[in-house]
Amino acid sequence: MKVVSHIHELKDMIKQHQKKQHSIGFVPTMGFLHEGHLTLAKEARDQNDIVVMSIFVNPLQFGPNEDFESYPRDMERDQRLAKETGVDILFTPDVKEMYKDEPSITMTVQKRTDVLCGKKRPGHFDGVVTVLTKLFHLVAPTNVYFGLKDAQQVAVIDAMIKDFFFDLHLVSVPTVREEDGLAKSSRNVYLSETERQEAPALYRALKKGQTAVEKGEHDINRIYQLVEEEILQTSGEIDYIDIYSYPELEPLQHLTGQVIIATAVKFSRARLIDNVIFHVPESGEKHV
Amino acid sequence: MKVVSHIHELKDMIKQHQKKQHSIGFVPTMGFLHEGHLTLAKEARDQNDIVVMSIFVNPLQFGPNEDFESYPRDMERDQRLAKETGVDILFTPDVKEMYKDEPSITMTVQKRTDVLCGKKRPGHFDGVVTVLTKLFHLVAPTNVYFGLKDAQQVAVIDAMIKDFFFDLHLVSVPTVREEDGLAKSSRNVYLSETERQEAPALYRALKKGQTAVEKGEHDINRIYQLVEEEILQTSGEIDYIDIYSYPELEPLQHLTGQVIIATAVKFSRARLIDNVIFHVPESGEKHV
Repeated sequence: MKVVSHIHELKDMIKQHQKKQHSIGFVPTMGFLHEGHLTLAKEARDQNDIVVMSIFVNPLQFGPNEDFESYPRDMERDQRLAKETGVDILFTPDVKEMYKDEPSITMTVQKRTDVLCGKKRPGHFDGVVTVLTKLFHLVAPTNVYFGLKDAQQVAVIDAMIKDFFFDLHLVSVPTVREEDGLAKSSRNVYLSETERQEAPALYRALKKGQTAVEKGEHDINRIYQLVEEEILQTSGEIDYIDIYSYPELEPLQHLTGQVIIATAVKFSRARLIDNVIFHVPESGEKHV
Repeated sequence: MKVVSHIHELKDMIKQHQKKQHSIGFVPTMGFLHEGHLTLAKEARDQNDIVVMSIFVNPLQFGPNEDFESYPRDMERDQRLAKETGVDILFTPDVKEMYKDEPSITMTVQKRTDVLCGKKRPGHFDGVVTVLTKLFHLVAPTNVYFGLKDAQQVAVIDAMIKDFFFDLHLVSVPTVREEDGLAKSSRNVYLSETERQEAPALYRALKKGQTAVEKGEHDINRIYQLVEEEILQTSGEIDYIDIYSYPELEPLQHLTGQVIIATAVKFSRARLIDNVIFHVPESGEKHV
């Protein structure tokens, strides 16, 4: 595995692979790798000639009161894990490399942003699409990999790729879960023992909502109640439970097409998010 | 020459050329081709394996009171001229092809825009960078060609390429002129006979300013006067005369580095623009 922190080095390497017509799988991360990232890298490994991973804590996607400075970093461990997972090129630029000057042109996300977690993080997705535009141009990937645990991020990136005709394929990878269903997350270690026992209720609640819809329940309020009921049995505080179309993230008049049920729940020291995404056939369409 | 209006056809063709490792020269236009465009296409022809030209009157770069509907179009003549000049692929999408949905993400030019012609056309360059981002992703050019007659456009595109690390080379082509120095423009036909005789004064004025600087005149007001003096001898009305750094388009404290002197002058039925861009050595640096 080659570790590069300068753009010109990365570009030289990419150029060599392009000459050989290699397919390039790209996994953009902010580092502090966990099993979610590694699952993305493994998928990229299986589907491409070479795998590029970037580790860049992007200041532009942190709000003024967010934790850019204290965001966890462990480059040594990350390098080891990336290498073990089969990453070929690890790109680790510093902030000056990625943002040399004050920007001349800014990007603003107008849709899919003012809901779910994005509602409380104004500007967050503007920072995400800006850094990804830069990274996509540098890495020139055939396939890019993102986890569906952050389903809103995937929805925004999907919009960006379609809007601007990026010539690449977005691979959204299902959430990796513990045996009891809890979505894997670096934040799970902050749960108390009791909370850890309660936490699988989030996924259970979401699946209960999904099952109800699949069995024919089409009253959104009723589904909302079913999900809420289950989560209320934990000691967590519900931040939101939302049901939208996916990936448009728009309110649903009718429960058809691709649907997301998503939730965020605050425990004492950790805020957990989870979601389920599933297809609801039109009436007339057959259930599969 | 192949004429394509659908994105998927264009992408198929580009993919074939990429497989053959062909270099791609790209000339984006709004059509109604004149000698300026053809000079760009010839340059692209000389420097690349294949030449792609786009003809797309981009609604996003027209203001509400501007002439999007009445912008001149002549596709038959354009096709003939493009073919004669050696264009391989002519891309002629309609508006729905380029803007399928309401945009999810917008781009805003923050620098190099609120001066010269951009000052009176708010949003114009936002539309330019948006459509070029799309076109660059579709055409995947090695080299893109723009004329320096619209020096501000070149400056904004330069910023966009640098900001977002577009993997392509911007070739800025010097303004094509009539024998008497008048910059070629489709609008010159709207000049009366007398105005046509007066019009070369614009370039003469700009060159007078440039010569003064090169001879050591470093008082910006004095240079401004020299240029103005010459243009005032025409019947045209001066819209602006400006002196900036180039391509930053920022006011100059000291006349050093790359400098642009630009002007816009209104005649009875035509508004003409022109500019000169030249390098002023630091004191200490030798004049060349």
